[in-house]
Amino acid sequence: MTQEEFLAALQERKEKVYSFLHREEFHARFQPEHIHDAIYSYMKGGGKSLRPAVLLFSCGAVGGEEERAVPAAAAVEIFHTWTLIHDDIIDRDDRRRGGPTVHEEFRQRAISELGYEPEEAIHYGLSIAILAGDMQQGWSVAILATLADYGVDPRLALHLIYDAGMRVLSLLVDGELRDVQFSRWEIEALNEDLVLEMLTKKTGILYEYAGKAGALIGLNTLDESHPYVRAISQFTRLCGTAFQLQDDILGIVGDETALGKPVGSDIREGKRTTIVLHAYRQAQEAQRRFLQSVLGNPAASREEIQETVRLLRELGGIEYTAGLARKFVSEALEHLDQLPESYYRELLRFWAEFMIQREF
Amino acid sequence: MTQEEFLAALQERKEKVYSFLHREEFHARFQPEHIHDAIYSYMKGGGKSLRPAVLLFSCGAVGGEEERAVPAAAAVEIFHTWTLIHDDIIDRDDRRRGGPTVHEEFRQRAISELGYEPEEAIHYGLSIAILAGDMQQGWSVAILATLADYGVDPRLALHLIYDAGMRVLSLLVDGELRDVQFSRWEIEALNEDLVLEMLTKKTGILYEYAGKAGALIGLNTLDESHPYVRAISQFTRLCGTAFQLQDDILGIVGDETALGKPVGSDIREGKRTTIVLHAYRQAQEAQRRFLQSVLGNPAASREEIQETVRLLRELGGIEYTAGLARKFVSEALEHLDQLPESYYRELLRFWAEFMIQREF
Repeated sequence: MTQEEFLAALQERKEKVYSFLHREEFHARFQPEHIHDAIYSYMKGGGKSLRPAVLLFSCGAVGGEEERAVPAAAAVEIFHTWTLIHDDIIDRDDRRRGGPTVHEEFRQRAISELGYEPEEAIHYGLSIAILAGDMQQGWSVAILATLADYGVDPRLALHLIYDAGMRVLSLLVDGELRDVQFSRWEIEALNEDLVLEMLTKKTGILYEYAGKAGALIGLNTLDESHPYVRAISQFTRLCGTAFQLQDDILGIVGDETALGKPVGSDIREGKRTTIVLHAYRQAQEAQRRFLQSVLGNPAASREEIQETVRLLRELGGIEYTAGLARKFVSEALEHLDQLPESYYRELLRFWAEFMIQREF
Repeated sequence: MTQEEFLAALQERKEKVYSFLHREEFHARFQPEHIHDAIYSYMKGGGKSLRPAVLLFSCGAVGGEEERAVPAAAAVEIFHTWTLIHDDIIDRDDRRRGGPTVHEEFRQRAISELGYEPEEAIHYGLSIAILAGDMQQGWSVAILATLADYGVDPRLALHLIYDAGMRVLSLLVDGELRDVQFSRWEIEALNEDLVLEMLTKKTGILYEYAGKAGALIGLNTLDESHPYVRAISQFTRLCGTAFQLQDDILGIVGDETALGKPVGSDIREGKRTTIVLHAYRQAQEAQRRFLQSVLGNPAASREEIQETVRLLRELGGIEYTAGLARKFVSEALEHLDQLPESYYRELLRFWAEFMIQREF
């Protein structure tokens, strides 16, 4: 398989999932107009669709029929999207996927279309973003509830719904909140294990869910201890955490245009990434004082951000984190080897590499 | 049946549902501490539990075994609770059930426990409230996903999950958003049908869902066209809308201590209730100008609020809305008559009256 073939396969899955999500029955359901537009906002260009893709590949890799898993893949994509909308509020980000974030988009539309005053427009944007995310959560679960119509054991559908709503969501929120709280901790008070655990919860768990759901649907079993299911769960969790490590790297040294969101906001928010932890460990006293003055300072200047980026890189934080991501993917690939050889296993191998090679 | 017997029956259901929700397995799941506390915040004293009660009564009224429906009743209570937490953000309310709203509680705790600055504390409170509501939505659906363990047809469990996530939630958000948008409309541009449709979506639909779920579980059928299911659906939707009319009345002339939330905030927000619409229709030109100056004015003084309350009452808005609520309940009771006579049907009759007689 070549990289081009892999990218084409990825694109094909994305189109399948998005054509499902753009069904007229869904478009008609979401009202009024602003809610409809907010729900579809991040789906205009769509994301990289790495979660739905791994769900479909995993289904195929255990010998299952991919078509049966398309609704679950769509559900995972929407589940991910609602967490983005709400996280963007919490992280106060105003750019995402090359456009405004939902709360920012509807702040602007409140002014231009509804003539709201600035303060009121902020609150309106916030309200729309909260409600749109809420509806997407309901939507994603509703899609899972239709899986039985596609030949999936109804008890497996219930199992997947339970797992998403109870375990995955709890861990995800736990991770997201720790991320927020850590940025107020002294760097010295943190260690790498705490940060990696947070990253796993924040990002790894949903990837693991996607892989596991694909495998369970492919086997049409509820047995999570099936060796293929276990292998794919571990594979996807590790790759998901590696994805987040790469995300942290791109948040510092990525290209804004390719990413579609601003670089430097992680610095202003004081995110305690492994980049920061490693660089801080290596830093001299004066460098530590400088880092402490910029990290978590929302008013940091462009120059200070640039100097911080330079310092994080010079102190080896980027390289170290890239090494961690590499290590996670290597370990993941060992789990993948538990599966029988197939075209789908090959796709999963390319997918794993893509998770840390991507530059957007 | 006496009113005391009814109230005791209501209390008994509330205890059953809350003891389910307070199971150790749930408490242990929600982390970190602030998320845990936020999730259980509105459940300390609990609400009136009218939704879970009607679900259980409806199950019994069609001849079903109430115990089987307890998880569904708990799920509906939590579903309602997450909408409260998010609505309180959107409505900017800071009191609920005799305590602070979730976003307000955690704004305060961010200051007292975490030493946050005022602006940061507001954002922290908001973040906790968003995430806690999100988790409650997941929790409520996860509980529905366990219904098969209690003897409910797995396909019925899936049907209830689909209906909650797709139809109920869409209508509810639609209603909530129209409520917000209407408050910026000119009163003349609105009419009673538009307001009643909004109230039905905002409140009636979730009551209808509770009643219908109870009936479907009681009959263990997916057949929504079953005459008992139809009768209970209409009964609960109409009572739910009447409940909201009574809520609007209490929002103007209720007792703050009994309600556990401030009276007058509907006026400051400019809520377009049937009280306002009717009073405005009856008002003289000068009275209309006064109403327009206060309704939707967040800075309205205590005296202006009092004068507005007096005017809304004097112009017959309260009485008119009470009459509407009475009419909805009377119509609801006709649907109830489609069910066979039973102890549970009697409970439902008392429940319907309670929906509009309550003073808190």
